[in-house]
Amino acid sequence: MKELQRLLDRLIQRANINLREINYDATPVIQNLVPLRQMDKFYAFYGISNYHPLDLQFQHANLAGSYFLGKCRVASSLVYKSDVRGDELKKKGDVFKFQNFEIPITRDEGIDIEDSFLVKTLVHNFSHDPESLEWFFIKDTISTHYANIHGSPCDGCFLGPFATADLTTLRDCIIGAFSYVQAGEISHMSIKPGTIWVRSPGAFNFFYQYDRSRLEKYISYTTGSAPTGIFMEVAEACKEDFQNIFDRVHIEHPVAVPETASVDRYALVKGGTHISDNVLVAQRAFLDNAWMGKGANAQENCYIVNSRLEGNNVTAHGAKILDAELGKNVFVGFNSFLNGRPKTKLKIGEGCIIMPHTIIDAETPLAIPDGHLAWGMITGPADIKTNTISIKEFAAVSDHFSMGDLFFEGSGKAFVEAFEHRIQHILEANGAFCDGTCSLGHAQFNQKISFNTLQPYSEGDLKGLFPTITIRP
Amino acid sequence: MKELQRLLDRLIQRANINLREINYDATPVIQNLVPLRQMDKFYAFYGISNYHPLDLQFQHANLAGSYFLGKCRVASSLVYKSDVRGDELKKKGDVFKFQNFEIPITRDEGIDIEDSFLVKTLVHNFSHDPESLEWFFIKDTISTHYANIHGSPCDGCFLGPFATADLTTLRDCIIGAFSYVQAGEISHMSIKPGTIWVRSPGAFNFFYQYDRSRLEKYISYTTGSAPTGIFMEVAEACKEDFQNIFDRVHIEHPVAVPETASVDRYALVKGGTHISDNVLVAQRAFLDNAWMGKGANAQENCYIVNSRLEGNNVTAHGAKILDAELGKNVFVGFNSFLNGRPKTKLKIGEGCIIMPHTIIDAETPLAIPDGHLAWGMITGPADIKTNTISIKEFAAVSDHFSMGDLFFEGSGKAFVEAFEHRIQHILEANGAFCDGTCSLGHAQFNQKISFNTLQPYSEGDLKGLFPTITIRP
Repeated sequence: MKELQRLLDRLIQRANINLREINYDATPVIQNLVPLRQMDKFYAFYGISNYHPLDLQFQHANLAGSYFLGKCRVASSLVYKSDVRGDELKKKGDVFKFQNFEIPITRDEGIDIEDSFLVKTLVHNFSHDPESLEWFFIKDTISTHYANIHGSPCDGCFLGPFATADLTTLRDCIIGAFSYVQAGEISHMSIKPGTIWVRSPGAFNFFYQYDRSRLEKYISYTTGSAPTGIFMEVAEACKEDFQNIFDRVHIEHPVAVPETASVDRYALVKGGTHISDNVLVAQRAFLDNAWMGKGANAQENCYIVNSRLEGNNVTAHGAKILDAELGKNVFVGFNSFLNGRPKTKLKIGEGCIIMPHTIIDAETPLAIPDGHLAWGMITGPADIKTNTISIKEFAAVSDHFSMGDLFFEGSGKAFVEAFEHRIQHILEANGAFCDGTCSLGHAQFNQKISFNTLQPYSEGDLKGLFPTITIRP
Repeated sequence: MKELQRLLDRLIQRANINLREINYDATPVIQNLVPLRQMDKFYAFYGISNYHPLDLQFQHANLAGSYFLGKCRVASSLVYKSDVRGDELKKKGDVFKFQNFEIPITRDEGIDIEDSFLVKTLVHNFSHDPESLEWFFIKDTISTHYANIHGSPCDGCFLGPFATADLTTLRDCIIGAFSYVQAGEISHMSIKPGTIWVRSPGAFNFFYQYDRSRLEKYISYTTGSAPTGIFMEVAEACKEDFQNIFDRVHIEHPVAVPETASVDRYALVKGGTHISDNVLVAQRAFLDNAWMGKGANAQENCYIVNSRLEGNNVTAHGAKILDAELGKNVFVGFNSFLNGRPKTKLKIGEGCIIMPHTIIDAETPLAIPDGHLAWGMITGPADIKTNTISIKEFAAVSDHFSMGDLFFEGSGKAFVEAFEHRIQHILEANGAFCDGTCSLGHAQFNQKISFNTLQPYSEGDLKGLFPTITIRP
């Protein structure tokens, strides 16, 4: 295990060099993030299919429990139980539009993870950085439990548990626990835990800050310790059931899957679940007594329990829906937590947008009316008033707007259109609109993925490291 | 599957070009060997360990159900449920002695399989060809069910079911079903089924020809059909049990394994089995109520059932021992079939050498006395007289000797010494003499192998083909 320890030391040093201005010390974080003895216990796996590019390179890395798809390079890194999904990368010949630029893509884009330590992290989408369109880089970066790195090249960053970097290039930044940042490009910033920040320079700025004392019950993180709170409890509750899924070569899910839908072989699906046409259930998603309407999806680390989704629902990476009924076209953003009760289901009306990192946790019956936008902490009727607004009304905001802990400036119309456009794109990409031959997306492409497994050395100096491996078509 | 079909056509043509002088037509053979639809059903796997070199390259091939260890290159080939074991290859810096030559090995040896079709074949040992010491090549070759290619580079050959090429370079040859050839170097020969031929040019020549009508019950093979007979029945009887072993990621064998022994994760071990120190049980070996004495081994495709092996027993690749008791230091050669009966166990005395491809199948109680050599077909007391001889007596043969269907010329002493030297080497290589720190062999080295799996494309033109993959340390 000598070499693995040496790699860990290297990662500590690299993080500290990058974050020196913020006076960040990565030593206790990295030392306690994952016990070294866990690092040779789990296999990594990668997908092979006709519908995805295949260009993988792994070198001097531990990949325990992680999943790779597409074009991806990992060097001198620890990637632990993470999902690195290269199924939305740009292709050679594409043209990327940015402001007045039309930038040709000169080779297939790849995800490039170097000198980084990712734990239970989702890496997805593509680089939105006009300065680096062919490499979606993650360099000198530490990301912790259930963080999402979505279309966000990172260099020298720390992402706390359940943090999301979305369509943003980050350099030398700290993103606190459960913070969501979608801001184009940021550098040398330390984002406090529980910050929800959506910015489109020149168009709008959406900013919400969770009350830390109310947030602690859900997610609490102290440097050097494991994260705690309800989010972790939900996420880790079915660890053993998932282990069973990983311990078998062939999996039969106890549910009928239509020809136009796909349920990943590494998803965990329990009885009472219904899968309609064009549904996508990704790896590490958990469905128990879940009714998935046509075109609904459940992405990585989603938990949908005792709930009904009417159709064309996006359940973004890490969202949890328990005891809830969601109308058609409801969007539930990253890591949101919708927690109804068995006897008083939480109701989300048709066409609602639940902002990323929203908590709706209601002891009493709660309903969000059709066509509403919801954000932040909602635990009772009073919060509905301060933390939701009809999308129509919001679209009419032309200058600024504030309500409860939300501060918004700019064009509400631009904000709503950006979200609606994106939701449409997500549904499309996931194959929600597929008619069998047209508009194919992940739900259709993922049906025929084969998985290969990788194991590390089990003894000696190299214990825990994976061999150098290159895979091409 | 277009590309797989094209590859099959290519292999037919290559075999026909190579075997044109013998008027061989590979078309019906190759077309019926393995249904194409089987080719994307099974994963391939390769071992990673500190004790074995790691240098694998797979390209334009189907590897369904096959196992790879060490340095190995496969190109434009179908390798179906075969074992390619590179754990005895020569290393850079070794010196190979041949006649008066001392040939330095300038780089690590590799197994090189190109334009070939191997079915349930074992490839093991190293190239004994002084003209090709760094590449153990298998080129333009077809080998069928349970054939062994042991230290035998092959170019343009066909090996029938249960055939063994041992320490022999073969060019443009046909080796009939259940024939065993150990002859240094042969070319443009067609060896009849059931031939046992051991030749050391200038030293001795051992030749036995099975009566074809007596052999048919055990193994019968017609070009273009699947092989039939008792051998196939035994070998395929526990197919489903083996599938279970392959279908799980983690396997716990129902047997205690001492620290100095190893039972491969892909072996099938049933209750009532005992594993002593220094025992090696290889992948695809089957043990059921088997008592394995200290230093005994069971190599690939061995079946040991209701039997007791006292210690330091070699059970070479493909040997089957049913209802038998074997004294210490008994050697059972490749693909031999020792079949006692539950109430009247077959007894093999201490220090016996059961020649490769021997059949001992006795309705009545049978015993081979200590220190005897046995060969060919033995089904009753009469055969004991014509097909066994005391090793001492045989060593006294100085010119020629014949008995039953055996013809021997040359030095019995040289023959016996060659065999004894080799048995000693096999026991050593397998770790039978390990005292915990010295004389380590496969039994000890194989304890800490991790296995990675590989899957083919599951759809489209490339269906059944594996991606191009390179693995290094």
